[in-house]
Amino acid sequence: MSAHKAPTARELAAKLAAGDLTAEALVCEAFERIAAHEDEIKAWAHLDRAAAIAAAKAADKAGRPGPLHGLPFGVKDIFDTADMPTAYGSKIYAGNRPAWDAASVALARAAGGIALGKTVTTQFAFVDPAPTRNPRNPAHTPGGSSSGSAAAVAAGMVPLATGTQTVGSVIRPASFCGVVGYKPTFGLIPTAGVKCLAASLDTIGAFAATVGDVALFAGALGGRDLSFPALKPKIGLCRTPQWPQATEGLKAAFAEAETRLKNAGADLRDVVLPAAFEGLAEAQHEVLAYEAARSFASEWHYHRAALGPRVGELIVAGLQTPAATYDAAMAKAARARAALDDAFGDVDVLLAPSAPGEAPHGLGSTGDPIFSRMWTFLGTPCVNLPGLTGPRGLPIGVQAIGRRGDDLRALAAADWMQPRLG
Amino acid sequence: MSAHKAPTARELAAKLAAGDLTAEALVCEAFERIAAHEDEIKAWAHLDRAAAIAAAKAADKAGRPGPLHGLPFGVKDIFDTADMPTAYGSKIYAGNRPAWDAASVALARAAGGIALGKTVTTQFAFVDPAPTRNPRNPAHTPGGSSSGSAAAVAAGMVPLATGTQTVGSVIRPASFCGVVGYKPTFGLIPTAGVKCLAASLDTIGAFAATVGDVALFAGALGGRDLSFPALKPKIGLCRTPQWPQATEGLKAAFAEAETRLKNAGADLRDVVLPAAFEGLAEAQHEVLAYEAARSFASEWHYHRAALGPRVGELIVAGLQTPAATYDAAMAKAARARAALDDAFGDVDVLLAPSAPGEAPHGLGSTGDPIFSRMWTFLGTPCVNLPGLTGPRGLPIGVQAIGRRGDDLRALAAADWMQPRLG
Repeated sequence: MSAHKAPTARELAAKLAAGDLTAEALVCEAFERIAAHEDEIKAWAHLDRAAAIAAAKAADKAGRPGPLHGLPFGVKDIFDTADMPTAYGSKIYAGNRPAWDAASVALARAAGGIALGKTVTTQFAFVDPAPTRNPRNPAHTPGGSSSGSAAAVAAGMVPLATGTQTVGSVIRPASFCGVVGYKPTFGLIPTAGVKCLAASLDTIGAFAATVGDVALFAGALGGRDLSFPALKPKIGLCRTPQWPQATEGLKAAFAEAETRLKNAGADLRDVVLPAAFEGLAEAQHEVLAYEAARSFASEWHYHRAALGPRVGELIVAGLQTPAATYDAAMAKAARARAALDDAFGDVDVLLAPSAPGEAPHGLGSTGDPIFSRMWTFLGTPCVNLPGLTGPRGLPIGVQAIGRRGDDLRALAAADWMQPRLG
Repeated sequence: MSAHKAPTARELAAKLAAGDLTAEALVCEAFERIAAHEDEIKAWAHLDRAAAIAAAKAADKAGRPGPLHGLPFGVKDIFDTADMPTAYGSKIYAGNRPAWDAASVALARAAGGIALGKTVTTQFAFVDPAPTRNPRNPAHTPGGSSSGSAAAVAAGMVPLATGTQTVGSVIRPASFCGVVGYKPTFGLIPTAGVKCLAASLDTIGAFAATVGDVALFAGALGGRDLSFPALKPKIGLCRTPQWPQATEGLKAAFAEAETRLKNAGADLRDVVLPAAFEGLAEAQHEVLAYEAARSFASEWHYHRAALGPRVGELIVAGLQTPAATYDAAMAKAARARAALDDAFGDVDVLLAPSAPGEAPHGLGSTGDPIFSRMWTFLGTPCVNLPGLTGPRGLPIGVQAIGRRGDDLRALAAADWMQPRLG
């Protein structure tokens, strides 16, 4: 399937606002694309065409208010929805009907968005793989855990979709599927009504085709205007302590990113992180396991046999993690957060790898989140940028990383880079 | 109603473990005390005697394993329970049946605790008052939002009950009802399955008669051993920037606390917080409002007319709070957290007021949480200690406050102080 060259969500929103397009027409179009590709891609856990068209008609009747003006979006099935089943990728919760919308979903709907359905998530947003295929090449994983959302956007089924990242679940699938993925600063989008994996790490994010689109949507999800200024950024190329895990494909793509940005006149330098950032990826896993072992106490004690093998292993690891190890990991992250501003120096953003390489072949694994662990733990805004490809012709993303709380600058920098990367 | 002079939970647990007491007998006794006092106190939103006795019998049959060994506990009705309705104090969710236990409830049950029912919470754990009365004097509020849990423990209905604190919802009712209330370090007990009010502030806590009991129970709720060492603490008396809001009753009680501790040979000094701590209480309210306005998006957009007046005002305030104000408040808290260790100097804990005075008369207000705002925002462990009384003969609590993450020392210091305060 080729990259979707449709108008951007911002362009569509402008047409909807001007009355040059109806939400109903847009939703019908989306369902046509879904009908054409869903059998192959398996991006959706639940679809409700009739309800979406009814919502679109209501939006049209109301004059399509709100910043989203009737734009369709997909909801990762880790977000509660009052009018659609929410199973969190687990048979334990098959048919589960929450009593509410997740806060972010309610905000996006109140902002004029039309939820088309629930996108496939891996079980509890961890790494046991889901059936979704990569629209760039269906023989490959789309990544996870936001598998369906990344694939649905990459296939042009919806212009916008929600995601969550506790390890690398927004940035990695965005990288593998060749779309923009945005993991905001920790806490920017409310987590209420989203199934908890690890409360210190869980971060709501979003997928779209462009940086402008993802900012528009994430702003609606967070009840916060994320309009960013135009900016020519100072960029720090940061290979991170995880660089030894880069594939040859990533190394070539990262060099190509540097070349393209240089040729576009970018203000570039290398940034090497200080010692405080060593070992953060490992510490992140300790925190994840310790917290997950407690967050999933209900599932562990009442539904153990129904848990995916990797979720089960994570819980066992977390039950074996001493509290002192957890506390030390949290303290390490606090120190690194305090050292982050100095590490950035005078650059606006860092540019770092999103994943070790292209999407792995097959659906047996959603790929390695290693290049996201540190940033999720630090709570920084991260924006995956597509445009580069690997030896198999599949996308390899790079991520723009801002200071914690400095999302507008991170988005502005990513927006400057996106067209220059390819 | 006089203070309940029953054996401590730790003593009961030892008897249960030794086979000198059955969980069934203990649960039946609890229901007798509930039957005797519930009509007046109104501590419970839901009770299930048959299910609790069945669980107790099962525990007895299994040899009463786990650190709780069959101890009964109350669950604030802001925690999800799979086998009991969970309404969050709101008619919106009357009869709501979650698909899981809150993580902390599942952990406490797995640790051998027997949940007797759901205790009354104010609507969504905010300040619209609930019908619960103060067991020390039923003409007075028990405080809130953990109204039923504090009252149930104070009335001797249960030895243990869960609470949550986003502003002052554990420490204030513990102070008003004359029991021990413990708000751990932010994040120590998992929040999964607890209705979110403001994710940066929501903290799970617990009530019991003694510091030892509350540590036993909170440890079970957090899946973490909170056994603390014996310690003669260095104590810093800290009147806080909120001292001008102390009533004469509080001023006298705080002076009495100093006298009693001095007479007991305590190592005491005054601690005055530096300028970084000014304005934190106000900043806490900005964060609360901003986050609540987003957490409750589903209730605001779909059930607005059913919201309590104070919840509605909070959401309106939060919708009017600029994102920059919120960001500045969060940054202020981060700076104060970084300055906290220096502010403690060489003391082990601070001792500060829990509330402006005795429980207000009537049920029209749950009282003022002003003396807890700063500490909740800082995420420090806080332990309310009873023992002092005000001019009306009602309890006035003081709170022992530890460094963030230093819960064992805070509990140890509180344990040293409790018998010496009265």
